[in-house]
Amino acid sequence: MVDPTVMFKHSYGLYIVSSKDEEGAAACLVNTVTQVTAEPIQVVVSVNKDNVTCGRIAASGHFAVTVLDESADMPFIGRFGFRSSADIDKFEGLSCATDEFGDVYTTDHCCGMCACAVRQTVDAGTHLVFLGEVVETRDLGDGTPMTYSYYHTTLKGKTPPKAASYVAE
Amino acid sequence: MVDPTVMFKHSYGLYIVSSKDEEGAAACLVNTVTQVTAEPIQVVVSVNKDNVTCGRIAASGHFAVTVLDESADMPFIGRFGFRSSADIDKFEGLSCATDEFGDVYTTDHCCGMCACAVRQTVDAGTHLVFLGEVVETRDLGDGTPMTYSYYHTTLKGKTPPKAASYVAE
Repeated sequence: MVDPTVMFKHSYGLYIVSSKDEEGAAACLVNTVTQVTAEPIQVVVSVNKDNVTCGRIAASGHFAVTVLDESADMPFIGRFGFRSSADIDKFEGLSCATDEFGDVYTTDHCCGMCACAVRQTVDAGTHLVFLGEVVETRDLGDGTPMTYSYYHTTLKGKTPPKAASYVAE
Repeated sequence: MVDPTVMFKHSYGLYIVSSKDEEGAAACLVNTVTQVTAEPIQVVVSVNKDNVTCGRIAASGHFAVTVLDESADMPFIGRFGFRSSADIDKFEGLSCATDEFGDVYTTDHCCGMCACAVRQTVDAGTHLVFLGEVVETRDLGDGTPMTYSYYHTTLKGKTPPKAASYVAE
């Protein structure tokens, strides 16, 4: 028997993954970034195919990941996690920078960045899992990384329907 | 420029991944388990090719994952993280159960279990990344899941050389 709530015992951080191709920039909130090798440093990230960002990464072959810190509030998280890049420019009004690929990322409420070149793409059904090699990092300050547990218990945040860990209520 | 210490800002849990084929049972400690889809529930786990467990999973096509809780002490963690299944029976003397595939797991110091059928295998160089569908879960109690941060800061634990996030000192 599978009880999806048992999976809630797994621990995660919260991240903004962004990419830019000729159609423009897109970004979304995920909890699915995991370092999978040390030499070279590679990460996997799972992104729902319905997210604009997923198509941008698939088209461009690169993406940036920023690590949210505990200063991130619900309006900031809602902008990246519950809105669509098809409707708004998620970076408008924020302090931004670009990685060496030109991917936009925000330095607000984030404590670290890594820029990744896609090496392999795995079709996992509803999501694409990108295996990316980290080619650039940037320390964005001393903020405490936000965990998914902190988001749920302290900020009382909900899981978006397109998230890898979504369970219908 | 890539600074591997920036990657330390990513958050993880700690897990024992185990598998059993005709050569026997093997298990190891990882921080690389991530749920990547919700329907069906699938996880990825990255395992170093030098770990006995990696070959067992590749051969058997299934594995069990247990979530360590904060009751796990350094001798328990050391047994699974710093010893080899080629040398010892890591489950000797522990309270154990088996998942529906016959994979052994321990119920000691763990708060949840999921059993997975391998659907895809990605060669990531030093590691294999297994994409597994969760076919069975078991709640192992109310222990607080141990985070990798807790392991490093409270238990003063080190990262094994074969880990995906290892950085030579």
